[in-house]
Amino acid sequence: MSETLFVVKIGGNVIDSPDALHAFLKDFAMVKGHKILIHGGGKIATKIGDQLGVQSKYINGRRITDDDTIDIVTMVYGGLVNKKIVAQLQALQTNAIGLTGADANMIPATKRPLKLINGESVDFGWVGDVDHSRFESQNLKLLIGAGFTPVFAPLTHDGQGHILNTNADTIASTLAVGLSSLYHVRLIYCFEKKGVLEDVNNDDSVIRNINKEKYQQLLAENKLFEGILPKIDNAFDAINAGVKEVLIGHAADLVKNTTEATEGTLITR
Amino acid sequence: MSETLFVVKIGGNVIDSPDALHAFLKDFAMVKGHKILIHGGGKIATKIGDQLGVQSKYINGRRITDDDTIDIVTMVYGGLVNKKIVAQLQALQTNAIGLTGADANMIPATKRPLKLINGESVDFGWVGDVDHSRFESQNLKLLIGAGFTPVFAPLTHDGQGHILNTNADTIASTLAVGLSSLYHVRLIYCFEKKGVLEDVNNDDSVIRNINKEKYQQLLAENKLFEGILPKIDNAFDAINAGVKEVLIGHAADLVKNTTEATEGTLITR
Repeated sequence: MSETLFVVKIGGNVIDSPDALHAFLKDFAMVKGHKILIHGGGKIATKIGDQLGVQSKYINGRRITDDDTIDIVTMVYGGLVNKKIVAQLQALQTNAIGLTGADANMIPATKRPLKLINGESVDFGWVGDVDHSRFESQNLKLLIGAGFTPVFAPLTHDGQGHILNTNADTIASTLAVGLSSLYHVRLIYCFEKKGVLEDVNNDDSVIRNINKEKYQQLLAENKLFEGILPKIDNAFDAINAGVKEVLIGHAADLVKNTTEATEGTLITR
Repeated sequence: MSETLFVVKIGGNVIDSPDALHAFLKDFAMVKGHKILIHGGGKIATKIGDQLGVQSKYINGRRITDDDTIDIVTMVYGGLVNKKIVAQLQALQTNAIGLTGADANMIPATKRPLKLINGESVDFGWVGDVDHSRFESQNLKLLIGAGFTPVFAPLTHDGQGHILNTNADTIASTLAVGLSSLYHVRLIYCFEKKGVLEDVNNDDSVIRNINKEKYQQLLAENKLFEGILPKIDNAFDAINAGVKEVLIGHAADLVKNTTEATEGTLITR
């Protein structure tokens, strides 16, 4: 049987609070076995962009990554956030190595082509779309096998010399899927709730297990909060592509969520 | 006989010019065999610091790395400069992996203690002093052996969760010395002259070879430009600690300076 690998994604709610981040990293360091961390960017890139006089541009609610913005996210995600996490994990005796998708060609991507939105042709700028099929696992396997803990910033590259901005959830699922033939992968999305809630107003109504049958049933009963549906759909995409389990849960429950006694929602085939 | 490893350091004069940097990276990609690149920061950290309202502080001509400054150099050196170089090398079919001394615990350092300067106790802030003897080569050897080309930003860490600012020349000599028992190391310092000049006003007066005897002779004849003496002393320190050869030359001569037909100054025992 193959070894277990935890692919853990944290978002802005953890990254933006030094105390929450430090508490999370202490837990992450305690997780036994192979693991990878993927972090988002949080609000600090926007804050530094504002200070530098670079305004975030949006078209139809989607952020545009222009020349100035890609420099800022490269600095903040690939430098400041990533290296602070690495230094803290080193202090916690976890041999972290900070990476972007450009390093060792870990995650090749394609600059997003122009898209027609509401009849308008939109250029998203330096945004990278990842294709699972182009991911090659051997370099990452080598690092994991050597005992390193990879820590990924949400950046990829186009193979033509440019860094690209890529959604951290997508990076996490790409790595989880790409490594699923080598490891028993549990993909863990840390978010601000304890899990998928049966009643969105009741934090204790976590649905502990969802498989495809249960998902159909929940949908038929119209029980799920609409905002959670894309997350569950993404989870089943990863599972259909080889990931054994996806866990959606709170960052503070990480240690339990890497055991059998999960606190969050465990999604399986 | 052990394999050759080129440890190449570039400074601000290359990094601050996108054209010069791109030309240099094309040459660097052509260098055959094992290689490591170490880059300085250039003027961009100062420029971004100014834009963010963080002023560089100096005491007796030495830069002080306070809390804001370490964040800026972590962003700029570890993020912007490092990842742009990595992405460009990837486009040149060189499997670069960007690192700081914190990643994989590559370069442990110690926060510089307070120093008495002109009777005043000076705190340099988040500056890291590297001790050759604490460098462990096995992690870096693993990456080099796997065919990666490590690209180092001039940052280290204190093992207690903090990134430290460290001189790029020092990082280069630390890596060169630390790997000298495993490889035949040529340490190449790229600077703005073609090499050590016999006549500082004549760019064609490069001294092609310096060994200890020749160095004593040049010193006795009072022929050397004073500013070059610390560079040559550092070179002999590296050679005394196991590095086979140190080359001081112009970035544009890199390819020749990795062969026998050097254009710069080759310093040997």
